Amino acid sequence: MSAESNAPVRLVIVGGVAGGASAATRARRMNEQAEIILFEKDDDVSFANCGLPYHIGEEIKDRDALVVASADFLRRRFRLDVRTREEVVSIDREKRVVTVVRRGMTSEQDKTYEQPYDKVILAPGASPIVPDLPGVDSDNVLTLRNLVDMDRIKARVDSGSVRRAVVVGAGYIGLEMVEQLRRRGVAVDLIELRDQVLPLLDHEMARPIEEALRRNNVGVHTGVGLESIQRDGELATSVRLSDGKELPTELVILGIGVRPNARLASEAGLEIGGTGGISIDEYSRTSDPDIYAVGDASEPVYGPTGTPMRVPLAGPANRSGRLAGEHAVTGMSATATSVWGTSVVRVFDVSVGMTGLTRASAKRFGKEADSVTVVAKHHAGYFPGAETMTLKLVYEPNTGKVLGAQCVGGEGIDKRIDVIATAMHFGGSVRDLAGLDLAYAPPFGSAKDPVHMAAFAASNSLDGIESFRDSDASLEEVQIVDVRGATEIEKAPLCKASGSIHIPVDELRDRLDELDRTKPTVVSCAVGVRGHIAARILRQNGFEVQNLAGGATVRNRCFD
Amino acid sequence: MSAESNAPVRLVIVGGVAGGASAATRARRMNEQAEIILFEKDDDVSFANCGLPYHIGEEIKDRDALVVASADFLRRRFRLDVRTREEVVSIDREKRVVTVVRRGMTSEQDKTYEQPYDKVILAPGASPIVPDLPGVDSDNVLTLRNLVDMDRIKARVDSGSVRRAVVVGAGYIGLEMVEQLRRRGVAVDLIELRDQVLPLLDHEMARPIEEALRRNNVGVHTGVGLESIQRDGELATSVRLSDGKELPTELVILGIGVRPNARLASEAGLEIGGTGGISIDEYSRTSDPDIYAVGDASEPVYGPTGTPMRVPLAGPANRSGRLAGEHAVTGMSATATSVWGTSVVRVFDVSVGMTGLTRASAKRFGKEADSVTVVAKHHAGYFPGAETMTLKLVYEPNTGKVLGAQCVGGEGIDKRIDVIATAMHFGGSVRDLAGLDLAYAPPFGSAKDPVHMAAFAASNSLDGIESFRDSDASLEEVQIVDVRGATEIEKAPLCKASGSIHIPVDELRDRLDELDRTKPTVVSCAVGVRGHIAARILRQNGFEVQNLAGGATVRNRCFD
Repeated sequence: MSAESNAPVRLVIVGGVAGGASAATRARRMNEQAEIILFEKDDDVSFANCGLPYHIGEEIKDRDALVVASADFLRRRFRLDVRTREEVVSIDREKRVVTVVRRGMTSEQDKTYEQPYDKVILAPGASPIVPDLPGVDSDNVLTLRNLVDMDRIKARVDSGSVRRAVVVGAGYIGLEMVEQLRRRGVAVDLIELRDQVLPLLDHEMARPIEEALRRNNVGVHTGVGLESIQRDGELATSVRLSDGKELPTELVILGIGVRPNARLASEAGLEIGGTGGISIDEYSRTSDPDIYAVGDASEPVYGPTGTPMRVPLAGPANRSGRLAGEHAVTGMSATATSVWGTSVVRVFDVSVGMTGLTRASAKRFGKEADSVTVVAKHHAGYFPGAETMTLKLVYEPNTGKVLGAQCVGGEGIDKRIDVIATAMHFGGSVRDLAGLDLAYAPPFGSAKDPVHMAAFAASNSLDGIESFRDSDASLEEVQIVDVRGATEIEKAPLCKASGSIHIPVDELRDRLDELDRTKPTVVSCAVGVRGHIAARILRQNGFEVQNLAGGATVRNRCFD
Repeated sequence: MSAESNAPVRLVIVGGVAGGASAATRARRMNEQAEIILFEKDDDVSFANCGLPYHIGEEIKDRDALVVASADFLRRRFRLDVRTREEVVSIDREKRVVTVVRRGMTSEQDKTYEQPYDKVILAPGASPIVPDLPGVDSDNVLTLRNLVDMDRIKARVDSGSVRRAVVVGAGYIGLEMVEQLRRRGVAVDLIELRDQVLPLLDHEMARPIEEALRRNNVGVHTGVGLESIQRDGELATSVRLSDGKELPTELVILGIGVRPNARLASEAGLEIGGTGGISIDEYSRTSDPDIYAVGDASEPVYGPTGTPMRVPLAGPANRSGRLAGEHAVTGMSATATSVWGTSVVRVFDVSVGMTGLTRASAKRFGKEADSVTVVAKHHAGYFPGAETMTLKLVYEPNTGKVLGAQCVGGEGIDKRIDVIATAMHFGGSVRDLAGLDLAYAPPFGSAKDPVHMAAFAASNSLDGIESFRDSDASLEEVQIVDVRGATEIEKAPLCKASGSIHIPVDELRDRLDELDRTKPTVVSCAVGVRGHIAARILRQNGFEVQNLAGGATVRNRCFD
């Protein structure tokens, strides 16, 4: 699949972070004779993009820690011709040269020159989206993409002038910034246009994150847009929301998403895909086989749909960079695998991870999907420190093929996501998940892991042994049986379940007469385990019954 | 794959813990009309076997936490006919009855009766091996298998009379007992007949555990047997080892392994397998299709070899119990999947997990195997709290099919083992591992996870891009190049590498003349990363070169 080479190929790489740096170092390791020129328009190469928020919050204290490999290091160890502050502005595919602007101290000092190439790898990344609003160019309205951005934000916070900040966009970067600004004692308001934080997740799976934000005194404003920014001189002083609210602020962070830097490719006549990224084949080659594209600017195949899609995440960027670097200098490499959008974020004491499709995205993509939700402990419940997680497994109705998963909670949510992402790589089904032999000892897991529990539930559903009621579905016109104990019910009544009948599961067999056998019935407990037992009892006694997915715990997240 | 049933089948289950309890509750959920009789010869059902050491050490403070489901609870919630202190002593397959002895207060009060059955599930577990040595019946020479054993050990420790203990056997239970006894302030000596702790692991992977034991002042005696136990009245006072050493002690814990409780099955004429467990098919049926066997007494298919083997672990016991319970009352279930010996144990601040084959066990099974070893951080190195792990990946030389993995370190070792175990379930190769889309954010992982790094190394080896020297191989008659910096080398010289040449990797290209191109060459660094770069440079310059697997870190574990 791979090969080495000693051909004196001239490789030009555009962009020196993540994908570009991975490509360059792998190319060197494959080929000592290659001439490898790494262009980076900004000052820094190979820095830890994903670490930026954490230095602002001083969770990462040492700025130098974020420099994975300096330009000097890359020159020394890998004999790379690293050229920072040099921007590739065009590609002449006929002449096989790129035009480069070398930045001077002022723009008058800029120098333009041509650099011949045999192969090009485009790793230009993506740029933060900045809405076209008056005031958006204020000195304290900032985005976060590189070390310069980071320094700028941190300097403001360090100066003590930021008591209140507004973060726009409740995606990964937005949430990480919120958390880190709170660490610095800044009061934070978070604005999200969609009606939930982390819009990539199913609604009820994002709720625990929203709760964590509120617990940490973050003002959460969902379903509202940023309408205008008021300023005083060079500084924004408040933002106005679409609902009319005005929030005073000394700092605005825009985290609304990124736009692929595909202009260079598109002006060179390379094919651009349906989601705005550079089209690539399985070796990350663009429509010109001598030009590759990797990372946030490109469109790899998205596993769950099998179609090209931008998935701007660091992992795929690094790994596809590595493969493109190898292919460019040897003509061979393993094919880049599909990406599944596997991701994770920590927000205070709650973390959430996902891979593949959600119920909502499956619907958007026109894919039929079922799901189950379990609430379980990250390790043996009897062992001290067990933390609760909610795991939602999305799968194909008939085949049981796993389409995706979301997991929110404390410790160990990343493990379950990675296990399920691994199964998805192989096209695995929920029955595969049920049969996995996972590591168990009390400090690490359970003999029946949350992954197993979710897979058991899904298998039960596929086999017609159990039927689930979606946690956000209507409970009108059904007979609702809450099988919890009286005190439990009192503490956390089931949302939108008027007229529910209370029969503790252990009494159910003896109290069947209190129920109407002719009525469609939904049972509910705290998380779905007793509901499962109750549903089985009722079903075997002739009831048409569904178990409420995730019980009251998850339902109440839908309607709280 | 599954089905429900309302047939009034009479199911007898022998053994009420783990597999037996899982079988009983699943059987009830599948079939409300079944008569389900659960026999347990001891006092307790469904207790947390794996938690016992932790209550002795008071890490689990509440004894009740270990009772997963009491007999009363099982009766109430699942209408199980639970009969504790009743032992099934024989099976008459002709008459379809089991003979039961109901224990009285004294053996004279024992009552014997026959219990008819339609189906039987055998879940008798295994018993600790007790060597035939004088003194082994002393009151303070104990094994740990159930709550009664636990109480007995804990009472001794609680009484304050145990200042010194000897633990015999450095497997999972032995190590957990060592850790928990140290928590209680007891001085502990650990004896292991094999020449390493955790004999299931490759030698160098077990070393960090041994170091953790020594750091915690445990006397580690490997390669020695227990020769005799000296006693004073009813109490052992010291043990003598095969090397002549005598260790005074107030408590001896035997953790040498377990023997399957297969007598009942064998006397009933059921087939017994090659490793001494009850033979079963893919539905856990014994050679009599009306009798099932699950858990430690049975022989499921061992994934890596495809042949039946005892794998006495809690996870497979619980999951196969569940499937057997379903099959017994409905005649249908999913097939029990193979087991891979996936396991994990925490020993003070170090944890180790494994799945599938080691290099050593592959050799024992006559399977060709290669391996790579990487040393990496459990999450982004620049993020505070990154802990180091050593991950060894074992795979088939030509296909790259993953055969097993071992991972030792701090946080996150269980995640890597579970990911690899999942890939093995699907017959995945190291190339699959290299392409996995795993969750990454700085607090959770790295863009290139340790799993990726190991898979990259293995793929390089398969592709002939890199060749590894086993960490324990001889370095005689090769040219050894240590590419670390001078201070690094001084701090941790490479073991058994006399005459090694020191050239820092960054100077290598310019100092090739100092090396002999005609000599087989081995490069080494701290963990193998710089060694990889150096090996690539040398190879492209005409050297025949290998990179020492895991660098000095792992080699020095082999010879320290």
